[in-house]
Amino acid sequence: MLTIKDIARLAGVSVSTVSRVLNERPDVSEESRRRVRAVIEEENYIPNNTARDLVRIRSEAIGLIVRGEQNPFYTDIIHAIERALDRAGYTMVMRQIGFADDEIGAGAVMQREKRLRGIIFLGGRSNYAPEELARVTVPFVFCAYTNSCGTLDPTAYSSVSICDEDAACTAVNELIRSGHRCIAALIADTDDSSISQLRYQGYCRALAEHDLPLRPELVFSTGDSFAIEDAYRVMAASLKRTDDFTALFAIADDMALGAMRALREHGLDIPGDVSVVAIDGITVSEYVHPMLSTLCQPKEELGTKSVELLLGMIEGRGAHAQVTLPTTFRAGASIRKLAKRS
Amino acid sequence: MLTIKDIARLAGVSVSTVSRVLNERPDVSEESRRRVRAVIEEENYIPNNTARDLVRIRSEAIGLIVRGEQNPFYTDIIHAIERALDRAGYTMVMRQIGFADDEIGAGAVMQREKRLRGIIFLGGRSNYAPEELARVTVPFVFCAYTNSCGTLDPTAYSSVSICDEDAACTAVNELIRSGHRCIAALIADTDDSSISQLRYQGYCRALAEHDLPLRPELVFSTGDSFAIEDAYRVMAASLKRTDDFTALFAIADDMALGAMRALREHGLDIPGDVSVVAIDGITVSEYVHPMLSTLCQPKEELGTKSVELLLGMIEGRGAHAQVTLPTTFRAGASIRKLAKRS
Repeated sequence: MLTIKDIARLAGVSVSTVSRVLNERPDVSEESRRRVRAVIEEENYIPNNTARDLVRIRSEAIGLIVRGEQNPFYTDIIHAIERALDRAGYTMVMRQIGFADDEIGAGAVMQREKRLRGIIFLGGRSNYAPEELARVTVPFVFCAYTNSCGTLDPTAYSSVSICDEDAACTAVNELIRSGHRCIAALIADTDDSSISQLRYQGYCRALAEHDLPLRPELVFSTGDSFAIEDAYRVMAASLKRTDDFTALFAIADDMALGAMRALREHGLDIPGDVSVVAIDGITVSEYVHPMLSTLCQPKEELGTKSVELLLGMIEGRGAHAQVTLPTTFRAGASIRKLAKRS
Repeated sequence: MLTIKDIARLAGVSVSTVSRVLNERPDVSEESRRRVRAVIEEENYIPNNTARDLVRIRSEAIGLIVRGEQNPFYTDIIHAIERALDRAGYTMVMRQIGFADDEIGAGAVMQREKRLRGIIFLGGRSNYAPEELARVTVPFVFCAYTNSCGTLDPTAYSSVSICDEDAACTAVNELIRSGHRCIAALIADTDDSSISQLRYQGYCRALAEHDLPLRPELVFSTGDSFAIEDAYRVMAASLKRTDDFTALFAIADDMALGAMRALREHGLDIPGDVSVVAIDGITVSEYVHPMLSTLCQPKEELGTKSVELLLGMIEGRGAHAQVTLPTTFRAGASIRKLAKRS
């Protein structure tokens, strides 16, 4: 009796390709489909229930919990996760929750309701305690953030992220290198245990390393939102109080775009009057005027690496790990070089 | 024996709220949770399997097939669909496929693999034939497009969309009203049976209604892409051949943003030298400079209405219907009024 493995060997394709052909999936090249079908015909193979069931057992649900709705930065990551899971024969079940919602609670419920094999958390906090995470009993990975402020044992959780504090420090250093000394920051909150706190810390560190004072009146907070409309609103309100800065560090591209509209409406030119730098590297920030200078996160790799770690744990091949990926500075046209002061 | 309905009545909340509390879902207000728990405690209610099963039976999978990856216009619609399904106790299972992929084939496979109760197709073609759609045997709804060029019987399919041809005609009329006579178009293709074809027809109709010639050299096609990078690339290449136009109609906001960068890099001011109008109304187009003038689609309503139609069919309350929703013109700052020629 021919097995799927035999067919794969005879057709010179992978086992998962054979599964896909047997299940009439569209995502197989015509050439592979032809070769698999030729083998099946030659060998007179009839897919039996066991083989089909083996395929079906692998078609299981992985939960993706997205915290903080409508962040365009997430779109590419979600897409990368969905494709990687699909290639491996799993199904992605997504749930979007608000920025202030409890993602661990949502995960605990979803794990039971949808009989999940694992969970990827996209956009969470950085201060989980072991008791909290004990509610999730399937393998999980934090994507795009890590547990920087909490008390989790590194052998007890997985994450794939950039180093948010370093990235922020690098971004602010780009402004300082260009001669800026009065640098404002647009953040969500200074101590919300989100990436906002970590990136704010990076901003503070860059200032401190260059003996620049931290001026609280130049730290603009939305409170609890990364949304473009809140960034715009807070920036517009802040400008009524002060515009005594030559550069702005925004913790996210989308927030920078909101701020740039407020700056323009206040009569300020970018980068003539105010330089702007951010972190994330969303697609559209490459097309706005001026092109945003930003630290790009490796979006595709954040997604695929998260899936790789998660499936490693589910399939018994890997253990918990924290993976830190590098960012890349994209020089746009939103930073002006200031003349050196004598 | 107390039923869920009794608890709902006693607590003064809906049946679905009681379900949510029983299932420890996070998306219930504290006040509702408190009232439901008070009734349960007072009445000494123990959730029985039947009640739990009733809830569970409703937790079923609805497929969302998204054709044409990374269209930011879809983000808000997907979010609206996910929330509406979640409120009704269903699970959304999403699959993203390429612009050139076969969404009906993907739906037929997914319906079987994931045991779907229904499918929402987001971003498809407009020319389906009955034989094709026969492969999908669960209820389905086309979201954000309709079967304008095909041979489907209106009693045999459902859709929720704007009228793409009318919307394009209205957008181009905004340019004509402002005195423009040389109006270029940036499209995917003229006859790809997608919304590109329909919006191109609207462009042609607006020109014809005002006795303006259709100049093929001013119709710029990406071929088969709505992606911002392709819009940018095609616009930049086209400008090397001609810039003999005072206005540009782009069939989608995202494409307009790509084109605007190409226009600026060619040394043209928007709207000083070239006015721009588009269709969709994505969030970020309100924040770019100049703010894009565009016909906004009712994104939230496209999503919720699609879910309403689909669940009506699944739950035996409704039949097939084609719903057309209105667009709203948002006057940005990307259209310049030309002086009247004598």
